[in-house]
Amino acid sequence: MPIITVDLFEGRSREQREAFAKAVTEAAVQTLKAPLDHTWVIFRDHKKTNWAMGGSLCDK
Amino acid sequence: MPIITVDLFEGRSREQREAFAKAVTEAAVQTLKAPLDHTWVIFRDHKKTNWAMGGSLCDK
Amino acid sequence: MPIITVDLFEGRSREQREAFAKAVTEAAVQTLKAPLDHTWVIFRDHKKTNWAMGGSLCDK
Amino acid sequence: MPIITVDLFEGRSREQREAFAKAVTEAAVQTLKAPLDHTWVIFRDHKKTNWAMGGSLCDK
Amino acid sequence: MPIITVDLFEGRSREQREAFAKAVTEAAVQTLKAPLDHTWVIFRDHKKTNWAMGGSLCDK
Amino acid sequence: MPIITVDLFEGRSREQREAFAKAVTEAAVQTLKAPLDHTWVIFRDHKKTNWAMGGSLCDK
Repeated sequence: MPIITVDLFEGRSREQREAFAKAVTEAAVQTLKAPLDHTWVIFRDHKKTNWAMGGSLCDK
Repeated sequence: MPIITVDLFEGRSREQREAFAKAVTEAAVQTLKAPLDHTWVIFRDHKKTNWAMGGSLCDK
Repeated sequence: MPIITVDLFEGRSREQREAFAKAVTEAAVQTLKAPLDHTWVIFRDHKKTNWAMGGSLCDK
Repeated sequence: MPIITVDLFEGRSREQREAFAKAVTEAAVQTLKAPLDHTWVIFRDHKKTNWAMGGSLCDK
Repeated sequence: MPIITVDLFEGRSREQREAFAKAVTEAAVQTLKAPLDHTWVIFRDHKKTNWAMGGSLCDK
Repeated sequence: MPIITVDLFEGRSREQREAFAKAVTEAAVQTLKAPLDHTWVIFRDHKKTNWAMGGSLCDK
């Protein structure tokens, strides 16, 4: 533990994901006292046509 | 809040997803007193070969 | 399928959850052509101290 | 219930998934006293570039 | 990886959960070629009043 | 979007969660170009008796 899951719109680059994973992992180790190797970050990409806010799909 | 996640088989049309998101959002606002803009609906499409019931994959 | 998961703040009554589950299930059957018995709705209650928006916990 | 969700790297064959779903379902029925037809297993495939351990993406 | 999440009704004993975790982990190692130490199983207990099937809460 | 879900063992203090949520949110805004108000962080606490690694529950 911990498992940090990120649900977001598709389209982020590998560099963005790597930078984010690194920052989140450092924060987990420092503030949550998480073990480094057991800090997992999973990105789940979503199409805007699969995400609605306020009742409307976000692809409009 | 709330976040309403829908795990279902792939293949629903945009119209179906939009109609469902709208109906669910209205129900959330009316029955759960959820704020409209903060009611998010996320569809996660699954292949039938990735879903098993009773021990058998659903693509049979 | 489908599985409809609702992440929300704790505190909704049984009546609210039942009404919401009923409305969502009807919408799933009508718009997504989901089978009635296989439409499952799961509520996950969260404390406001476990949910942050914009970097601040929601219990303030 | 129960719903058993498996987050793993993409690339497992249909045979592997079917064998795993069968084994997990049998274990659920025997040890958890789960009803067979209501034991659902969902596989969610992830790219290694979407999964980080220890702050580094797993595609390296 | 993998992460195996089990959503189920509350009430299973520690012995049941341990036996199930062991069986699932063995199946993951054998059929999915998962590394033993990186096979994580998480149980999420749900009250029957938080789970609906066919539009009715399961606590009836 | 994004929704950042943190599955971890119970026992972290409010200060730890707030510091982590703040750090993660800042990283999301800077590296993922996420909108501040739409960056949600949800903590899900788990008992060690509900989490297994390598086939054994973590409460041992």
